[in-house]
Amino acid sequence: MRVNGKQGDSISIRDRGLLYGDGVFRTFRIRCGKPQHWPKHYEKIRHDSAVLGIACPAFELLTAELQDLLATHPDGVVKLIVTRGGGERGYAPSGRSESTHIWDITSSPEFPADRAVNGIKVKLCQLLLSQQPRFAGIKHLNRLENVLAASELIDPDVAEGLMMDANGYVIGGTRSNLFLVLSGELITPELSRCGVAGVQRDRVMAWAAANGMPLQVRDVTLDEVLISDEVFVVNSIIGMWPVRELENRSWSGFSVALRILLFLEQQDIN
Amino acid sequence: MRVNGKQGDSISIRDRGLLYGDGVFRTFRIRCGKPQHWPKHYEKIRHDSAVLGIACPAFELLTAELQDLLATHPDGVVKLIVTRGGGERGYAPSGRSESTHIWDITSSPEFPADRAVNGIKVKLCQLLLSQQPRFAGIKHLNRLENVLAASELIDPDVAEGLMMDANGYVIGGTRSNLFLVLSGELITPELSRCGVAGVQRDRVMAWAAANGMPLQVRDVTLDEVLISDEVFVVNSIIGMWPVRELENRSWSGFSVALRILLFLEQQDIN
Repeated sequence: MRVNGKQGDSISIRDRGLLYGDGVFRTFRIRCGKPQHWPKHYEKIRHDSAVLGIACPAFELLTAELQDLLATHPDGVVKLIVTRGGGERGYAPSGRSESTHIWDITSSPEFPADRAVNGIKVKLCQLLLSQQPRFAGIKHLNRLENVLAASELIDPDVAEGLMMDANGYVIGGTRSNLFLVLSGELITPELSRCGVAGVQRDRVMAWAAANGMPLQVRDVTLDEVLISDEVFVVNSIIGMWPVRELENRSWSGFSVALRILLFLEQQDIN
Repeated sequence: MRVNGKQGDSISIRDRGLLYGDGVFRTFRIRCGKPQHWPKHYEKIRHDSAVLGIACPAFELLTAELQDLLATHPDGVVKLIVTRGGGERGYAPSGRSESTHIWDITSSPEFPADRAVNGIKVKLCQLLLSQQPRFAGIKHLNRLENVLAASELIDPDVAEGLMMDANGYVIGGTRSNLFLVLSGELITPELSRCGVAGVQRDRVMAWAAANGMPLQVRDVTLDEVLISDEVFVVNSIIGMWPVRELENRSWSGFSVALRILLFLEQQDIN
């Protein structure tokens, strides 16, 4: 664990990351001493910081710190947080504070191995996402909606919750992005009003472009999800889980999903 | 500064208050060694914690800790934060972690003394508040909207920003609750979809009830604000500031507002 480049596991109680959730983060895997898709994650956190007007540390600095951490943690999950830092009292940023950056590494989560091939059970969350176009899509620290949605998932068989917005559109999982395969096309929800646009989502979209599969990024209704040929969720930690069960619909086979997963995994290894 | 009853100015980087904004807070004044309306603030933070399913420390414990702090800080501004604490990785609360509670005391802010009598200039913020009925009204740590709205207030003559929601209703200031005086009635925005319901707002409503002034809590449009006889904002730190200027409208006099302010101040002293 490092805070602003120094060994440490704590931050000031006056850091705006705590006070207001005034910051952004990214989570990704390290495998065999290699950070997975680090440049893509850096590009995301740099972009998200810029949306909030937070100065993100330079790629070279963060890469050097990450390399240093890898020496003692060749496998696991990395979390990188960048906050607006400390500063004067009140909501308005002073413009004079330096950002805070935090590294945390934990062991790799142990998910049941059959999820990728047999799919998961997904539950529709009751919590409806609010719409904030000003910072939709970015991975900021205001994540109470995800916390409350995830706390609805009490059944241990349920591996992910599906979140909708108040307009009746499906946005994604509590911790993942959603894709549908419908009539030979890939569809993923538009994230300009809510949701988080993950690196793994970008990688699936890049696969579609590279493999000539039509892709639509647009508003998606629950009815469309339920009539889809395949449904799957992705993120940088789980990789991909096809959906086996949602509401009263069940799926099996996952031929398109598994073809994409194979591509993603092969890229991860190389 | 105290964290979980012990002297300290830092928290774990794994505290959910930082990771997700998974917590609540309150801010109030200490004057001459007396915390202002502490039981009301406790009741609010206990209520807000309960909405999120966070265990708020008991009144007796927090009161004892506060008394202890007062000995060395007889005047200033107190911030009390309660987070869901640490725990396992992921959005879902484990249910096993103990909450974290944090006290911070800073010196009293120095506002220009004439604001209460001459009123302030208010600017309409461009940021529109999102609507989340699940935790509207509570003072949680997901305050990015307030941060971005407050950062629009660059003109040093502007003392507060007015925030609206995407439906075109006025909700309140970036750090204050709003009241209108219109045709002999007090009106304050409904906060069931967004906004924060402050202690000072409750006190103004209690004044109205005790003094036979009709009060409406309902949706308020900007047009209504601009045709009001008086407009004022309140919070527990500033007390009350009448609005002198907003958009192209100006006000003076503030006879109802100042009558209420006098009552609030007299209660504060006693």
